[in-house]
Amino acid sequence: MNFSSKLIEKAVDAFATLPGIGRKTALRLVLHLLKQDKTVTEQFSTALVAMREGIRECTQCHNLADEDLCQICADTRRDRRLLCVVETIRDLMAIEDTGQYRGLYHLLGGIISPIEGIGPADLNIDSLVERVQAGDVQEVIMAISPTIEGETTVYYLAKKLQPTGVQLSSIARGVSFGGDLEYADEITLGRSIVARTPYGQ
Amino acid sequence: MNFSSKLIEKAVDAFATLPGIGRKTALRLVLHLLKQDKTVTEQFSTALVAMREGIRECTQCHNLADEDLCQICADTRRDRRLLCVVETIRDLMAIEDTGQYRGLYHLLGGIISPIEGIGPADLNIDSLVERVQAGDVQEVIMAISPTIEGETTVYYLAKKLQPTGVQLSSIARGVSFGGDLEYADEITLGRSIVARTPYGQ
Repeated sequence: MNFSSKLIEKAVDAFATLPGIGRKTALRLVLHLLKQDKTVTEQFSTALVAMREGIRECTQCHNLADEDLCQICADTRRDRRLLCVVETIRDLMAIEDTGQYRGLYHLLGGIISPIEGIGPADLNIDSLVERVQAGDVQEVIMAISPTIEGETTVYYLAKKLQPTGVQLSSIARGVSFGGDLEYADEITLGRSIVARTPYGQ
Repeated sequence: MNFSSKLIEKAVDAFATLPGIGRKTALRLVLHLLKQDKTVTEQFSTALVAMREGIRECTQCHNLADEDLCQICADTRRDRRLLCVVETIRDLMAIEDTGQYRGLYHLLGGIISPIEGIGPADLNIDSLVERVQAGDVQEVIMAISPTIEGETTVYYLAKKLQPTGVQLSSIARGVSFGGDLEYADEITLGRSIVARTPYGQ
């Protein structure tokens, strides 16, 4: 593309470095900003820089946080006896959006993946064990993706946590609500028959 | 969405004000910036603010420019006898990308549209007439969309420019190169038969 302006070219290049944004979309965004008042671009930039400069890791659960503790850990109304272990902040947010969980979280920061060279030492596992050993937690809910790496991670966590005597659980797996049985994959459907629950529960 | 961080929420909101970017995409962009070094976000913001602060309108053709004259108007190798009239910078860039045109441009800034309340006085028409009257221009090529508003604008421009004696032309219309005849719309196909060109031209 020929921009006939170095300033526009640099701004388009900047947008185009973001994932999923090509140069055509980037140009559309730049032209949009040009149509708006200057303060719009200033506020946009300020919000991004403030976010990038200000954000830190929650010292307790490794969630992204504005203060030393994230809003969830700092919320005294949440049930400190429940600890949900997730891979990333996306999974945490997906669970939060359900509005069904009122306990705390622990972010591993990934899962054990020998192929990608991620071992237990690269994840927030020691701090999880320490939190459980501290005594408040009664149940650790493992909300980890049911992949080979995920199952390996769950197995490793279980071995690490069993000595503490804490109750371990895993999120329920089965056919989706609203999902047609015929479209459920074989493994999910097979396991949902084996792990059937009594009617009424 | 529950971000458990005001800083992230504000950054997501900022991205989500941009056209075509929803809150899920905005979150993906924010998490991407968080994974990068702080300098990436700083450079991104700096490029946008520099662009928004520094950009101005070319005093000659109304294109976006870094200096008083845009790169095209300032380029002495371009043919000053040809003037291509376009609606917006997008159309200018589309023509520049073809690499087939070496003249100058004039951006109207839109087209006459009574429905949207845009009259001739809202467009850069007076400055176009002045440029033509100044004498260097020998041909004005109208590259305006073939819509009702576009045709109205072309008609108005022709009436304004005819007294100057400048040669007027319009970009060729017809069936696309590589386009199947059966998929061409009726109006385009009909006009392309009426306005057929001698073989070999």
